[in-house]
Amino acid sequence: MKFVKNDQTAVFALGGLGEIGKNTYAVQFQDEIILIDAGIKFPEDELLGIDYVIPDYTYIVKNEDKIKGLFVTHGHEDHIGGIPYLLKQVNIPIYGGKLALGLIRNKLEEHGLLRQTKLIEFQEDDIIKFRKTSVTFFRTTHSIPDSYGVVVKTPNGQIVHTGDFKFDFTPVGEPANLTKMAEIGKEGVLCLLSDSTNSEVPNFTMSERRVGESIQDVFRKVDGRVIFATFASNIHRLQQVIEAAVEHGRKVAVFGRSMEAAIDIGQDLGYIVCPKDTFIDAQSINRLPANKVTILCTGSQGEPMAALSRIAGGTHRQIQIIPGDTVVFSSSPIPGNNISVSRTINMLSRAGAEVIHGPLSDIHTSGHGSQEEQKLMLRLIKPKFFMPIHGEYRMQKMHVNHAVDCGVPEENCFIMDNGEVLALSEDKAAVAGKIPSGNVYIDGSGIGDIGNIVLRDRRILSEEGLVVVVVSINMKDFKISAGPDLISRGFVYMRESGDLINDAQALISKHLNKVMERKTTQWSEIKNEITDTLSPFLYEKTKRRPMILPIIMEV
Amino acid sequence: MKFVKNDQTAVFALGGLGEIGKNTYAVQFQDEIILIDAGIKFPEDELLGIDYVIPDYTYIVKNEDKIKGLFVTHGHEDHIGGIPYLLKQVNIPIYGGKLALGLIRNKLEEHGLLRQTKLIEFQEDDIIKFRKTSVTFFRTTHSIPDSYGVVVKTPNGQIVHTGDFKFDFTPVGEPANLTKMAEIGKEGVLCLLSDSTNSEVPNFTMSERRVGESIQDVFRKVDGRVIFATFASNIHRLQQVIEAAVEHGRKVAVFGRSMEAAIDIGQDLGYIVCPKDTFIDAQSINRLPANKVTILCTGSQGEPMAALSRIAGGTHRQIQIIPGDTVVFSSSPIPGNNISVSRTINMLSRAGAEVIHGPLSDIHTSGHGSQEEQKLMLRLIKPKFFMPIHGEYRMQKMHVNHAVDCGVPEENCFIMDNGEVLALSEDKAAVAGKIPSGNVYIDGSGIGDIGNIVLRDRRILSEEGLVVVVVSINMKDFKISAGPDLISRGFVYMRESGDLINDAQALISKHLNKVMERKTTQWSEIKNEITDTLSPFLYEKTKRRPMILPIIMEV
Repeated sequence: MKFVKNDQTAVFALGGLGEIGKNTYAVQFQDEIILIDAGIKFPEDELLGIDYVIPDYTYIVKNEDKIKGLFVTHGHEDHIGGIPYLLKQVNIPIYGGKLALGLIRNKLEEHGLLRQTKLIEFQEDDIIKFRKTSVTFFRTTHSIPDSYGVVVKTPNGQIVHTGDFKFDFTPVGEPANLTKMAEIGKEGVLCLLSDSTNSEVPNFTMSERRVGESIQDVFRKVDGRVIFATFASNIHRLQQVIEAAVEHGRKVAVFGRSMEAAIDIGQDLGYIVCPKDTFIDAQSINRLPANKVTILCTGSQGEPMAALSRIAGGTHRQIQIIPGDTVVFSSSPIPGNNISVSRTINMLSRAGAEVIHGPLSDIHTSGHGSQEEQKLMLRLIKPKFFMPIHGEYRMQKMHVNHAVDCGVPEENCFIMDNGEVLALSEDKAAVAGKIPSGNVYIDGSGIGDIGNIVLRDRRILSEEGLVVVVVSINMKDFKISAGPDLISRGFVYMRESGDLINDAQALISKHLNKVMERKTTQWSEIKNEITDTLSPFLYEKTKRRPMILPIIMEV
Repeated sequence: MKFVKNDQTAVFALGGLGEIGKNTYAVQFQDEIILIDAGIKFPEDELLGIDYVIPDYTYIVKNEDKIKGLFVTHGHEDHIGGIPYLLKQVNIPIYGGKLALGLIRNKLEEHGLLRQTKLIEFQEDDIIKFRKTSVTFFRTTHSIPDSYGVVVKTPNGQIVHTGDFKFDFTPVGEPANLTKMAEIGKEGVLCLLSDSTNSEVPNFTMSERRVGESIQDVFRKVDGRVIFATFASNIHRLQQVIEAAVEHGRKVAVFGRSMEAAIDIGQDLGYIVCPKDTFIDAQSINRLPANKVTILCTGSQGEPMAALSRIAGGTHRQIQIIPGDTVVFSSSPIPGNNISVSRTINMLSRAGAEVIHGPLSDIHTSGHGSQEEQKLMLRLIKPKFFMPIHGEYRMQKMHVNHAVDCGVPEENCFIMDNGEVLALSEDKAAVAGKIPSGNVYIDGSGIGDIGNIVLRDRRILSEEGLVVVVVSINMKDFKISAGPDLISRGFVYMRESGDLINDAQALISKHLNKVMERKTTQWSEIKNEITDTLSPFLYEKTKRRPMILPIIMEV
């Protein structure tokens, strides 16, 4: 990194700036790089067929020998989902809190990467020392247990990364360590990287404890079965549901792969505590009266294959909606999922269930701090320089406003892009240059093999379909020996479009015969003739522009 | 309609129940059918490539001779967008208020249907009399001028259809005619069909006048250019913006085809009133100081081709964002548009604009009445029977709760599906049967020619792409004479996947040679062999399942 001076600290992100997800941050001093988080992003709709998006890891791969470790703030997919793909390219130790490490372990096992990877659990008070830098932590509150902020001590000063956080003063698990944050602030912080997600939301985010009261209300009022859908990783929420169920004499049946895994890991790690006979299997549900049953399941985002969607659609093998059922969506729809959530609610409602959802029900709260919490963090940490992270550009920008309100000079605030490198000395900071960054698409087992051309083709195919034109040509006597045959998919229903197809065939034949008369041996000329003839013809007849794929067979 | 007795009135919908859009309702007594609205629906994401969705018009076409007219409540697309497609199948007179008719006229002109269609403008006090039924109206308030409720008087009693409505006591145009609604209620109403859209929203919807105050605030505070994006059809909103601009000494430039049309029609009909020199063209913008310029444009939903999106993306021919610009989103994102709206805001923000948006800014209000307004309608109309219309199932269901709270017996409330027919006599109502109903897809110039098979193919193509396998076979000696050749689109980037393609070709050759040895003449057998060989091979190598299209050419 030539553009950073030898006595400066570099702070940068490969992902997680100007976007939600694929959070991957780094602090570098000379030959020591501290990585913080390695997340994935779920693709937006136009990335047709793409499963996940990860950052371009080029810089990490090239500097593998300098990486001291990957420090994980918490166990959400947008912070740990990239780890298997990263570990396929580099071998580096992973440091994490108890739960995050548990989740990472499962993930690495699935990918066959567990044995070769060094996993190190840290406690809040640990100091992980390297030659020139060291790393410490402070406990935060978030929508998953064991969330931490990370402090990287460099010769230029302390760099603080909040991870995702809210200030929940009455959390279900451990409270945030305000004292330690205040101490870190008192020691002096060179740069704060802080979570911008809710910078547009006024006031304070509701406490998880308030959600607990709403859960209690549901169990008090409902006489039938309670079907409770939420994020599997929100283990404190799960514990609150299970506690309420036990208090009201109900058993709990668990559905959905990630929910079952969360209950297992939550029990293993002691976050979920309940009498031994609390959980029942699917078969036992129908043996109990409705008011003794709680069903805890995935699908609160309306994901089509999740347990709740299958229950709603009547295609779940073991559970059908019966009158008296109450379904709780303890979640808020992630942008892009509104329609599928809405559809699931309608199906459940049609099937006869009462549905509790939405902000008015107080049955869900965000894991991210609102404006006053962001300001509290700023006032505790008192950084010299500030870099808003996590969130779209406008959220970063609004977060800067809060920082300025809390006394950080505007010229000390840096709204950065992925790949941009902030070079810091004790009293100066500036964007010094850029390292490779970008999106790498994962589709099936392919990492980065889908590019813009394939995506463009998928888009055309998805909207307009395809017409294949096959023709066999005898190149000795320049005659069509078979075809042209037209086959279409996703364009028109062929059996009902005989005339259109026949007319198109005749038209292409006529034009090809003319081309043959010219005795061309240029296949591209023949192919172009087919496309140039067919495309305007089909547009005139249908006002659609399918992809045209001419195939010439030489016999 | 055999299942409705000769002395009963039938009420039904071809669209607009359990869904948002494609509103198309009907009241029938014997041989007289009154149609109310003919809307389109914008397709959900999984309807790949579909432009619009209209109802199945079979019943209307079969009973064309009975149709007395189509009565239009107001000029929004989800109430008038289907008219051209309907008029391609039947020739019926259209009754509408002033603005709705103006918009319909433009639409019919585009489709070449204007000359043959009878368009009749109604006034609120008109009574349109037929032999057995008659139709009257009452003025409502909504987010477009000239919105009406429709009353169909039948021998069994009055059927009231609210159209879309809110109760805005301080509207920009005419207030709702509460007096007439009360009189209709006093005369006695057999059945009320009422707008359910906001049945889940508590209290009263904010007045358009409050939006006007927020618009004034913007113009008071902003020193640079004001770029104002909103729905073109909300002509009262446009008038408020233009008024504020004029008051603050600004000129107005208009961008976007539908916005330009709305300004024209609004001026023609007298809804938009301003000094003659208010409007300026694109060239004049840069000749004026920033604080003299207002830009009124489309794109408040983040539509990729709309004026605002092109301004945001830097691809607009005439307008670039300059520092000091303030962009106002006077809208709320329709579900499904959240991401594109959000993306537009980020781009504008990055380009240096201040962006005003969201519910906290009071710069937009819904056109639909909330819970207390739905109850006010119920208390004024005092119907014997109640059918919630417009909106998803859960909204209809919630609306029934409000009706019951307002004294309609629960057994008199009917949550209906499209196509279901409610048969009413003076004191009885029951769902009597069903007529054909469903979705008809419009893609390009095709109406209803895209079915589930084509959509399924588009879905597979969009997510996994396609592999075409072409092979020429000499059927005399059962030999492969050319190929197999593999061509893929949307699957992998072929130039970088040579090995995969070569291996696949070799594998198919091997299998086909075996098939040839069996001297089969069944093409389906050969095709199946190709698919059955290639599909598992590609899945193993890529974990993807592209569509496989085997093409055999006989030479």
